[in-house]
Amino acid sequence: MSKEAGTPAFRSQCPVAASLDLLGDKWSLVIVRDLMVRKRRYKDFQDSPEGIPTNILANRLRKLEEDGIIKKRPYQEKPVRYEYSLTRKGADLLPVLQQLALWGHKHIPGRWSPPDWFLNAKPDDLLAEK
Amino acid sequence: MSKEAGTPAFRSQCPVAASLDLLGDKWSLVIVRDLMVRKRRYKDFQDSPEGIPTNILANRLRKLEEDGIIKKRPYQEKPVRYEYSLTRKGADLLPVLQQLALWGHKHIPGRWSPPDWFLNAKPDDLLAEK
Repeated sequence: MSKEAGTPAFRSQCPVAASLDLLGDKWSLVIVRDLMVRKRRYKDFQDSPEGIPTNILANRLRKLEEDGIIKKRPYQEKPVRYEYSLTRKGADLLPVLQQLALWGHKHIPGRWSPPDWFLNAKPDDLLAEK
Repeated sequence: MSKEAGTPAFRSQCPVAASLDLLGDKWSLVIVRDLMVRKRRYKDFQDSPEGIPTNILANRLRKLEEDGIIKKRPYQEKPVRYEYSLTRKGADLLPVLQQLALWGHKHIPGRWSPPDWFLNAKPDDLLAEK
């Protein structure tokens, strides 16, 4: 799929396929997961156990921001550094992640059990400042 | 991630990341969606509006079968042709797809409304022969 900034070309009008046009890769939802557990900064994402390569991290953060799933704000000047958070559109991915976590725990041996707070959370909880 | 047949190497013990090790691409869950709406054969998948390239379709069917998400059985000999269906592990992806459909419909303008039968279905319904 070709996709210019801000003008995604979707493969069909199917909401599942279109969601995957934005999120169908191995890393985007891992970053969204990190934001759901209150990670905020570049180094936080790099420290996650999956070991995201820095070029992929930079690319995915840019795409997620372009697609309105995350937003950033500077927390430091000279050099400027950003921290990231979920938009409403991003927070609304929580039920997708909850179901993926349940599926992975049930069907892939040896995975962590999803914590209760995560399974019981609501998108609004993720938008509250803490 | 390197991944030999039958021995997936997962990036972490996180059930979300591990699920994406198996399903984190633009096409695997589109094929799973097709199977959920009772498409069964190679040509059925090719006829879907996303226009999956034949080499990607063959690759994803093989991977999904290796990972125990779909199974196949021959419906024709000489040349042998297969039809595909969801395993329990595959049918249990229904809540993930339901949530992706709801998210895509809510947040990506112009997408189809997910049909009620799909939103109300249970994994067991997908395993019943029809």
